[in-house]
Formats: sequence, structure tokens, C-alpha cells
Amino acid sequence: MSKEYNVAILGATGAVGTRMIQQLEQSTIPVKNVKLLASAKSAGKQLSFKGQPVTVEETTPASFDGVDIVLSSAGGSVSKKFLPEAVKRGAVCVDNTSAFRMEPDVPLVVPEVNEEALKDHHGIVANPNCSTIQMVVALEPIRQAFGLNQIIVSTYQAASGAGQSALNELRQESQDYLDGKDMKADAKILPTKGDKKHYPLAFNLLPQIDVFEDDGYSHEEWKMIHETKKIMLNDMNAKDIKVTATCVRVPVPIAHGESIYFTVDDPTVTVDQLRAVLKDAPGVVLQDDPAHQVYPQPINAVGKRDTFVGRLRADEENPGAFNMWVVADNLLKGAAWNTVENAERLVANGLI
Amino acid sequence: MSKEYNVAILGATGAVGTRMIQQLEQSTIPVKNVKLLASAKSAGKQLSFKGQPVTVEETTPASFDGVDIVLSSAGGSVSKKFLPEAVKRGAVCVDNTSAFRMEPDVPLVVPEVNEEALKDHHGIVANPNCSTIQMVVALEPIRQAFGLNQIIVSTYQAASGAGQSALNELRQESQDYLDGKDMKADAKILPTKGDKKHYPLAFNLLPQIDVFEDDGYSHEEWKMIHETKKIMLNDMNAKDIKVTATCVRVPVPIAHGESIYFTVDDPTVTVDQLRAVLKDAPGVVLQDDPAHQVYPQPINAVGKRDTFVGRLRADEENPGAFNMWVVADNLLKGAAWNTVENAERLVANGLI
Repeated sequence: MSKEYNVAILGATGAVGTRMIQQLEQSTIPVKNVKLLASAKSAGKQLSFKGQPVTVEETTPASFDGVDIVLSSAGGSVSKKFLPEAVKRGAVCVDNTSAFRMEPDVPLVVPEVNEEALKDHHGIVANPNCSTIQMVVALEPIRQAFGLNQIIVSTYQAASGAGQSALNELRQESQDYLDGKDMKADAKILPTKGDKKHYPLAFNLLPQIDVFEDDGYSHEEWKMIHETKKIMLNDMNAKDIKVTATCVRVPVPIAHGESIYFTVDDPTVTVDQLRAVLKDAPGVVLQDDPAHQVYPQPINAVGKRDTFVGRLRADEENPGAFNMWVVADNLLKGAAWNTVENAERLVANGLI
Repeated sequence: MSKEYNVAILGATGAVGTRMIQQLEQSTIPVKNVKLLASAKSAGKQLSFKGQPVTVEETTPASFDGVDIVLSSAGGSVSKKFLPEAVKRGAVCVDNTSAFRMEPDVPLVVPEVNEEALKDHHGIVANPNCSTIQMVVALEPIRQAFGLNQIIVSTYQAASGAGQSALNELRQESQDYLDGKDMKADAKILPTKGDKKHYPLAFNLLPQIDVFEDDGYSHEEWKMIHETKKIMLNDMNAKDIKVTATCVRVPVPIAHGESIYFTVDDPTVTVDQLRAVLKDAPGVVLQDDPAHQVYPQPINAVGKRDTFVGRLRADEENPGAFNMWVVADNLLKGAAWNTVENAERLVANGLI
């Protein structure tokens, strides 16, 4: 009989954590036992795994005794505190927070792009930011086929990227707006918990995701730039591909959209060649038939593991430059599924 | 006493038409008499101008007898039918539809950018598309100061760009979604009246505005490319500035957002130099203070004539390249106000 694994899910009660449970239920990983861990506040809550009830436990270092795999999405400070404890006890952790992403000895992995980086792990594998994941899934097959020089991305990011409380806030604001009430009192979390002012997202656009850096870029934009380089080129400051980003929160509950402009090495590449490559690319579903109004939409991507790509067009004034539109479920491919997929690949490659 | 003008508003009962009435009330044009024109269906409806009741009349060629200025926003086919009749009777028309925009002898005018083109009119002046207007207002001062090479724009366009019925549809869908009902039955207009399939916009993103061209670009994207060239360079196919666009409808009632990437001639230009130019630019309000979370938002732009610009950032890997975020009320600067402003400038320059 093949090995079975004890798995702990850290942050099991959140928007991503509950989806990690579902994705693990549907995964190829042989699971012996599941521990659902959270803060003291959520301890005692009843959840289930494959139909069996599981009681949520408060996370302590001893929670990781005998655990083989940790899937973590409880916030950066929780990961920083507990994952070293789990590693000390022999577990391999896939961390969905930004805590370790830029550590040189922590692989930052999207399996469709850089699965081979998993072998360099020292107990922790980092899951990239949601907006980065869907972009690199769509661009890597193009890079492999034709080379990639420059990426200019504008995001249309869903509220759930800021957690369940942001989703609730969008819902409350939307109802208040429709009832003719003032939405401003509802705004307590967005654009970002970590900053001073809060603004309504319902029926609005917020060009701020995370806090701002000194150069005017938001930290989300910084992540898209440097994570993309680390994932594709194994160097967060690599110059071979130039990347810039504008990240905007939109009043959508789940699934991010991205308008991506990119240039390839070969100026003779055509849209048909790009479509041919994307049609067979891992994790990609091509939805690109404008004549029949077929293109990716968030409401159709919710609950799916795939990255949906459409609206491929040549920039007719710049040979080798193209526009495309990419949508994926930020809580699945952007978080829970990519985390579980990394764990699946660790198991399949004998790295746990 | 200075001359007073007889003004007709064609399409007076629509989302833009009602705002044309308000903008004309507040304008510097000395108005003798106002005629409110619409289809037979709306004839008889009571509206008001400067506190006086005005009955909406059905549009006929004879409606334009004695009219000096026509402000038109009743759809392209209505403009094509009636504006030549109005011109024949001696009126000067400012047309907010796309009917005449690409005619070589029709100036396409945003007064802050190319007011001088008004003098070449032959009875008709065209108002550009809403998404084009706010982009050229923000970019022209930069072009004047530093030269402009390339524009890559991704839009976040409000439902009202598709008319009052699209606004109503967004509202109905939003309420149905919050009530847990299926939104799909509500979708009868968006993404565009002129195409076969209709999709919900509420809590969703639709990367289609207007119908698709053979090259995969939507007609809205085509407009942004060619109108920008005609307005800035007086040639819809000019090569001096390269333009590409991705247009997306977002679940916002009023005010478009635009993420604009652009390159200038001088690679030494800094963000501070751009801000200095934009601070004093006509029609522009600079809202760019990330440290205090100040940036343009649709809910703050509604009802304003200005174009709001923020999130200015250098692309640190490409000298002379920048990102910015631009928001304006698509029904005012993008339509009603730019139309009335064109009429104001025609009057002020003695061109009527």
C-alpha cells in the first residue's frame, strides 16, 4: 500500500481555508488524517472532510506533531510564527501567504510553470499571489514557444482577494446603495485592512490593493512584478522580462480579470499561433471566439480550477505585441487549488 | 445686446439628453429658446429648462426651422437622418453619436485638446466617444510638454455608457443577485444592443463594448485607437502615436476608469514633471497622493465636469514610460458636457 499523509490546514475557516478542504477532498493525495487549525476564536467549530465531522483546533506548535503536509492560509504573521515549528517537526508546508515568497531558499511555485523548483524546497514552498498565478499560467506557454520580452498588466480584482469580510462588506454596501442609503459607513476593510482610510467598493473602483510603496506602486503591483520574475526566471530582479502592473479592485465577489499586453521575441508571431499554443497549454482553457461572443467572464470562472484566456489580438502597430484578457477563480487557482496542486506535485515527485 | 441662440436638444429624454439640458442651463451660451426633441414615443412629455416647463416634441425636419444650435444624442441613425436637415436650415450641430466622427470634413473635438479644429466645421461638429475624451484630456498636456509615442489603455467602463436601459438592467441584476435569484433572465441589453447574446454585468466583467471587428478588436476599442489619432494628430490613421486598447464593461453605474500606459519622447522625464504639467492642465484635476490614499474613484467623479488623474508611476525598467489611472463622468465630460462645451466654444469663437 502506498504512503498516506497526515495533512494540517492552517486557517481552515477562512474563504481560502474552506476551499482548501474541498480541493484536498478532490485531490490525488492519499490522506490518512486531516487536522483543521485556526485561531482560538474559531476553535471548536465543526467542519467536515469527506463527509466525516472534524473539529477545528486552536493552532499551537504541538499541533504539527506527526503532520506530513501543512497547507497554510491564515495570514503572513501566523505563517511566520508556526511554519518554522511545523518544519522543525518534519512537515513540508505549502504557504499561501506572502511571508516567505521572496526568501531565496523558498521555491515560489505554479506547477504549470515551474514545477521543477519544488525539488529545492527546505520544508516550505510558497504559493504566489492570486493575480500573479493566473497571469503566469497564461503567459508561460507563450514564453516557452516564442520568448517573452515585456508584460504590461491592468487587473480587475475581486473583493474576495481581501478575504471573507471584504466579500461581506461588498454585499452590504451593494444592498445599501440599492436601498438609497449611504455606503460610506459600511466601508471598514477595503481597499485594504493595513491602511488608514476605507472606501466603498460597491458600484465603484478602487485603484489600491495593499499598501503603497515609496515609488507609488502598491504592494500588490510590486508582487506581480517581482513574483513573475521569480517564477519565470528564478530571480525576483531578473531583467530578461520587463514587467509593470496597475492593480484595481472591482465590485465583483469572486474571480479576477486581467488585461495583459505582452511582447514576444519573434515579431512574425500571429494570433493563430498563440491560440494554437494556448489551446493545449496545461491549466488553460481558451475562450476566444469574438464572432460568437465567447470570452472569459468571472461569473463563468467561479468554482473552476482553470485559467480562462480570450480576446487575443495583435497590436497592429507593433509587430510581436499582443493584448489578451485572462480570468480565473482567485480563491481556487489563485489560492486553494494552486496550494493543493503544489502539495500533489510534491507527493507525486517524492519530495515529501 | 449680444446675440441669443435658439437651441434644439435631440434625444432630450435619454441619460445624456437630460444632462445636456442641465449643462446648457449652466453654460455661458445666451439661450433665447430651447426645443426638446425626441421620438414620437416621448413626445408630449414635460421637462423643464431653467425652471420653465418645456414639452418634448417629435423630431421632424421642420423642427429645425429657426434653430441656431443642435445638440444631438439620440443615436447614430437619428443623427444621420436629421442633422443634414438641420444644417440645410442653417443650424450648427454638435453630435454626440458616432455617425459623423470619421467624416474628413467633420471636426472631432475635445476643446481642451483641439479647439482650433472647430473653425473647419461645415455645420456639424462631432463629439468623441466617452472613453476617448477622458484619455485625451489627460494625455494632451503630456504630449504638448514631452511628446507622446505610444498609448496602451485598459478601460473600466460604466453601464450608463450603454444608456439608461443598461443602467436599469445593472440595478435589477444586482438586486436579483443579492436576493439569490438567477440574473441571466435580466440580461437583455448588455454587453451591447447590437449583438445577439446578452450577459449579466452585475458582479461580473464583460470584455465586450460594441460589436467585434474582423481583427478581434471591439468597435469601442477601434474608436479609442482612431479617434485619439484624429483628435491629437488630425489624421485617424496617423502613425506618430501608436495606440492600442482593451475595453471592459464593469458593474459601475456612472464614471469610467482607465489604466493608461504611455511612453514620451524624452526618456529623462520624471513623475514630478508629469504632475507639474497635469496640475495646471485645462479640465484636469490631479488626485495623486498615495501616502494619503488619494486617487480618482468613480463615486467621487459623478456629476463633475473634470477629468481626474492619479496613480502616476514610472515604469522603472523602461525610461520614458509611465502608468496612470484616469476617471471621469462618462455622461458629463464623456458626453453632455463635452457637447455643450463644444457649443460654448463655437459661440465664443464666432463660429455659429
